[in-house]
Amino acid sequence: MSYFRPGIDATQGYTPGEQPQTVGILKLNTNENPYPPSPRVYEAIQKAATERLRLYPDPLATRFREVAGELYGVSPDWIVAANGSDDALTMLTRACLDTQDLMVVPTPSYPLYRVLAQLQGCGYAERPFTEDWQLSKDFTAGAKLVFIPNPNSPTGTVIAAEQLSRVAEAATCLVVVDEAYVDFADDNCIRLVRACERLVVTRTFSKSYSLAGIRFGFAVAQPKVIAALRKVKDSYNCDALSIVAATAALEDQIYFLATVAKIKATRQRLARELARLGFSTLDSHANFVWAQRPTPVKPLYETLRERGILIRYLRYDHCEGLRISVGTDAEIDRLLDTLTKLV
Amino acid sequence: MSYFRPGIDATQGYTPGEQPQTVGILKLNTNENPYPPSPRVYEAIQKAATERLRLYPDPLATRFREVAGELYGVSPDWIVAANGSDDALTMLTRACLDTQDLMVVPTPSYPLYRVLAQLQGCGYAERPFTEDWQLSKDFTAGAKLVFIPNPNSPTGTVIAAEQLSRVAEAATCLVVVDEAYVDFADDNCIRLVRACERLVVTRTFSKSYSLAGIRFGFAVAQPKVIAALRKVKDSYNCDALSIVAATAALEDQIYFLATVAKIKATRQRLARELARLGFSTLDSHANFVWAQRPTPVKPLYETLRERGILIRYLRYDHCEGLRISVGTDAEIDRLLDTLTKLV
Repeated sequence: MSYFRPGIDATQGYTPGEQPQTVGILKLNTNENPYPPSPRVYEAIQKAATERLRLYPDPLATRFREVAGELYGVSPDWIVAANGSDDALTMLTRACLDTQDLMVVPTPSYPLYRVLAQLQGCGYAERPFTEDWQLSKDFTAGAKLVFIPNPNSPTGTVIAAEQLSRVAEAATCLVVVDEAYVDFADDNCIRLVRACERLVVTRTFSKSYSLAGIRFGFAVAQPKVIAALRKVKDSYNCDALSIVAATAALEDQIYFLATVAKIKATRQRLARELARLGFSTLDSHANFVWAQRPTPVKPLYETLRERGILIRYLRYDHCEGLRISVGTDAEIDRLLDTLTKLV
Repeated sequence: MSYFRPGIDATQGYTPGEQPQTVGILKLNTNENPYPPSPRVYEAIQKAATERLRLYPDPLATRFREVAGELYGVSPDWIVAANGSDDALTMLTRACLDTQDLMVVPTPSYPLYRVLAQLQGCGYAERPFTEDWQLSKDFTAGAKLVFIPNPNSPTGTVIAAEQLSRVAEAATCLVVVDEAYVDFADDNCIRLVRACERLVVTRTFSKSYSLAGIRFGFAVAQPKVIAALRKVKDSYNCDALSIVAATAALEDQIYFLATVAKIKATRQRLARELARLGFSTLDSHANFVWAQRPTPVKPLYETLRERGILIRYLRYDHCEGLRISVGTDAEIDRLLDTLTKLV
């Protein structure tokens, strides 16, 4: 007899993109930000690295929620802080899904959702995007929880915020819009949470705020939903240093906007050059570009890897492609130079 | 219809001890360490607070596991790092317990276990300690997962390591020895994991290492068990700063041992003085003392609170008492002075 639940023995778990701890490798595989975090982040960490680390952190990350609430125009009790947005996705899964319940997600999309369903032991359905990267008709049918990444990974495509709000209005369950990449897009769903109890928005500091290393994210929803998520989360899920780092990053909107603008400019150039090299790309609203070819692309991924350039090769039931994170201009030049010689 | 699982609606969640964010309050309520962390911790944090925070942390906290493995005499693949030991307890719960399964814990003990069972939607049984604070006969009967805090909270009592090993040997499920307070005791169970596949030990940096603020803990078990826990954990459950802080603290054993020795000396004095004031206390092997009186103690807790001294009032089915964390000598003097006037 196993010590573990049958679903745990059956699953492989989630395999994140490689995180080599060596230097010198060009990392364009996990959508990290190529620019450093705001200088205010270091100051905040230094200021918090005192004997007060012996004390538990604020379990509700109150100061962070105050700043975020002001920025996003919601009251702090509409926000729950998370140990990365993956922690928020885990809370939502644990709060909503019993064995007989169904999680619904679009495909191709973020492979973590499937693993969360496996770990929870609930049902799981992937429903393909339409040809123009919208949700299929009756997308939420039968669901007890829906995850929709917007912008989507790996495609970088978006669904209009108002359309997502209509989907949530018509649903009978929580509809989670995973906005990990939304700061690189033109619109977002937070304002729509006010009018729709079923809409939940999740965010991360790993991408646009250059803070993947500190693990911080949050969810926005109506207070009744937030109250349930608070019950599920570990009491002290966010540590004292992450809370001050995320708060400092959020407070430096000038730095943030400048960084995002640089990445959007480089993204445009990367997409254009990839097209010139014979890749088909989609109009990306995120900090990566999804590149496909009529011929297999895995060999390209492998050759780049041998040359110290990591990108992400992703394979789904009906498609495969290369997801390339937007680096600095110099990094993208190095990638394009190498690719030019290979294709 | 609720958006949430029935068990989520039914539970209140876990209420941690108060964490006032104001200064000047004497905090003897959540077993934090009154001494600062090792100076090496600040250095390590400062060194890690660089542009590398834009990158994801090592998902397996390899460097930490190497240092811990060397210290505890196990290979790194016998260790999984956690976002506080609560995260390790959550991983174990999610890995092992289906709806029809039973979690077994002793009572009176750590109230979080009950909440973890409620969140998981599994069965839950509290089995009273014997009069001399040992496990009752057939303690693990019917269990799919057992948690035994050792030293126990709130009593500070211990069960001999070899006895726990025998319990795990005879069980048919994982037996988790929650060693959050073990550094203040004389013995521990890590060496016994080698011989028993069912024994799991969890540890935290929140108590003896003065690092409650960074959220770091770990579990030690045989590699097969660790592999299952890795599947369940969030991919990047520990952040880059916590990993280096915990590693630095662990490397400074001289500082650690000196701090623990001071706390043990103060603990002895606190217990003696409480006895002199008419409390009945137990021989504590942790960094707190459990104090009871024949008369209700809640009013004492409340009066101390009004005077800016926080201790923990805990009430169980068959007993109640005050759990007082061991502070510095000056802090304990302040507590004892106030108590002397009240009893």
